[in-house]
Amino acid sequence: MTAAYYRGNKTFEVARIEAQPPGPGEVQVQVAYCGICGTDMHAYHGNMDARVGFERILGHEMSGRIAAVGEGVEGWAQGDAIVVRPLDPGAPNPATEAGYPHVSHNLKFIGLDTDGALQQLWNVPAFTLHRLPEGLRLDHAALIEPVAVACHDVRLSRLQPGEDVVVIGGGPIGILVAMVARAAGGTVVISEVNPHRLAIAGKLGFDTVNPAEADLKAEIEARTGSKGADVVFEVSGTQPGVDAMTAVAATRARIVMVAIHAKKPQVDLFQFFWRELQMIGARVYEPEDYEKAIALVAEGQIDADTVITDVSPLSEIQAAFEALDASPTALKSLIKVGDVA
Amino acid sequence: MTAAYYRGNKTFEVARIEAQPPGPGEVQVQVAYCGICGTDMHAYHGNMDARVGFERILGHEMSGRIAAVGEGVEGWAQGDAIVVRPLDPGAPNPATEAGYPHVSHNLKFIGLDTDGALQQLWNVPAFTLHRLPEGLRLDHAALIEPVAVACHDVRLSRLQPGEDVVVIGGGPIGILVAMVARAAGGTVVISEVNPHRLAIAGKLGFDTVNPAEADLKAEIEARTGSKGADVVFEVSGTQPGVDAMTAVAATRARIVMVAIHAKKPQVDLFQFFWRELQMIGARVYEPEDYEKAIALVAEGQIDADTVITDVSPLSEIQAAFEALDASPTALKSLIKVGDVA
Ligand SMILES: NC(=O)c1ccc[n+]([C@@H]2O[C@H](COP(=O)([O-])OP(=O)(O)OC[C@H]3O[C@@H](n4cnc5c(N)ncnc54)[C@H](O)[C@@H]3O)[C@@H](O)[C@H]2O)c1
Ligand SMILES: NC(=O)c1ccc[n+]([C@@H]2O[C@H](COP(=O)([O-])OP(=O)(O)OC[C@H]3O[C@@H](n4cnc5c(N)ncnc54)[C@H](O)[C@@H]3O)[C@@H](O)[C@H]2O)c1
Ligand SMILES: [Zn+2]
Ligand SMILES: [Zn+2]
Repeated sequence: MTAAYYRGNKTFEVARIEAQPPGPGEVQVQVAYCGICGTDMHAYHGNMDARVGFERILGHEMSGRIAAVGEGVEGWAQGDAIVVRPLDPGAPNPATEAGYPHVSHNLKFIGLDTDGALQQLWNVPAFTLHRLPEGLRLDHAALIEPVAVACHDVRLSRLQPGEDVVVIGGGPIGILVAMVARAAGGTVVISEVNPHRLAIAGKLGFDTVNPAEADLKAEIEARTGSKGADVVFEVSGTQPGVDAMTAVAATRARIVMVAIHAKKPQVDLFQFFWRELQMIGARVYEPEDYEKAIALVAEGQIDADTVITDVSPLSEIQAAFEALDASPTALKSLIKVGDVA
Repeated sequence: MTAAYYRGNKTFEVARIEAQPPGPGEVQVQVAYCGICGTDMHAYHGNMDARVGFERILGHEMSGRIAAVGEGVEGWAQGDAIVVRPLDPGAPNPATEAGYPHVSHNLKFIGLDTDGALQQLWNVPAFTLHRLPEGLRLDHAALIEPVAVACHDVRLSRLQPGEDVVVIGGGPIGILVAMVARAAGGTVVISEVNPHRLAIAGKLGFDTVNPAEADLKAEIEARTGSKGADVVFEVSGTQPGVDAMTAVAATRARIVMVAIHAKKPQVDLFQFFWRELQMIGARVYEPEDYEKAIALVAEGQIDADTVITDVSPLSEIQAAFEALDASPTALKSLIKVGDVA
């Protein structure tokens, strides 16, 4: 079978290797598609070398079918269409004991800390599997992982139908958050500075604001009768995004912190007191978010054909990363890992 | 009757004035005691001159009895023992319409934006009144307003019995938050840098940490089996306090933002993502917090005699403010405004 190794320095090696049989408690997955995400791009740029090393097979936004079932695995059979929730919580600790294995202190992210889906036959623990419904296209199903991120974010926001939502940052994750929030009944505005991404957001039917050109706070106040947004998603990862999140928030608004802020931005804590704002940190997903994401993609509530802007074969992975890195218009690139019916 | 006017420049004038009858919808209150709070001290220092002016009677942490009832007021009678919830929401707006008049966009804080309780006969809207139970001492009842702040903070924290709590900042508000959290079943540690306040916290039976001398994060981890605190109250209003709030927090901890941060501190937003932390802004109180505070003070769950460190007559208000300003050990000073049985 074929696998793509990250070798450091923006380089992948595509190699023929021997497939290993699944171990006890594992299944072997025939990978169909695997999406490239911001984290993979971060690794490609060498920013995660200490964590991933140079013998790593990346990839975690995948779809496929079960090829073989290991010892002790029940409820799964060869041919089942599945996606993998790429989290291994590891040894018990206060977070798993409190019922939050997805933020386990010992969490291994499969596809970063262990080998991922950019290989044709992939062994994974059976507890990571979610079943796909009949008729769901496997290319569309490769969106389920990032859609599950969005489902988690929207669920934690406690969004109610009819509420006003601002999504700050219209990258791949922000766009999916906006779609899931809209599917949940929210009235969504996307704030984005990149004109290409503004165009995509518009094409997907969203109202948009470019805060570099318009006064975002005034715009949201005008749209909401001076109330402000009931729910705000900070998905830009920038200081201006953090400034905007409190500025557009209604009294008692919920601000969901989706973005990963490596630096410590300044936050207008006075507004948290003054308007009793809430901020809710959100990381990856729980099983129910995967089930919700599968349902949304299966129902066609995620415009998968617009979100997926490119599909390349595994043999062309190097070119695919280079193209995505250079493209201002790409949203989600998929790698077709194997021919899976 | 006698009233104390703030005249600017750290000066009060005590004057004999004519009492006015209560207007329609108002009651006239015979004020018994009035506490001095951080905000009053802030005004005394001249930091709120633009807001309060130089004709203002301050005071909002009070107790008293009804002296007279204005036109159209029902359910209240002369002699009723009461406290005033000093909030006037003003004209309707999105916050009042959403059911949060205590954070109304048009909120007037009585005792700052209008005249307060440092006068012997005080006219207030009847909707601000809460009834006191028989036998509750009126000096103790002057603590109900700040205790209601603490009740609001603890209620918004969703504290469950047995949870681990860290209160950052052991000033008057932090100490009351700690007491209310303990009464709700929390296991409370107070972090404070001032040795006098550490001593008071210890006298009130709390475990304390001085983060200038010990590693607060390591201390909280040691006490919680490396879990961290389930609930954190930031009541210091400082950058080191904001740093500590994320450092000591358990996965999915709730951080209540009680302090008023005039500057925009740096916040470790990465930790909000990584451990799915929540931050909850909290401002003043709602009616149920007043009822809870009245019950806690009446039941003796607030050690009022330790918290009240000084009582002065209204005629000595100037000296009382000067003494409180100079004192490192005072927690709560009361002014005895009138002789109320
Ligand atoms: N919580 C999680 O589990 C999770 C999962 C995946 C990704 N993330 C994080 O979510 C964030 C978004 O991911 P992505 O892949 O979409 O990233 P991205 O960088 O592609 O998207 C960010 C977008 O924000 C826009 N932006 C920049 N400044 C802005 C401003 N001032 N106002 C509005 N928009 C602005 C950018 O133009 C860009 O389109 C990243 O921080 C990523 O690390 C978190
Ligand atoms: N949310 C509300 O409605 C509301 C109501 C009243 C007061 N407040 C605010 O609550 C805060 C506390 O009020 P207060 O009257 O108790 O104020 P205070 O200034 O008397 O108390 C703050 C305490 O924090 C301590 N401190 C300073 N640095 C510290 C650190 N690094 N670690 C631990 N402790 C530290 C100080 O020594 C002090 O004792 C203020 O910001 C006040 O404005 C808010
Ligand atoms: Zn991803
Ligand atoms: Zn006060």
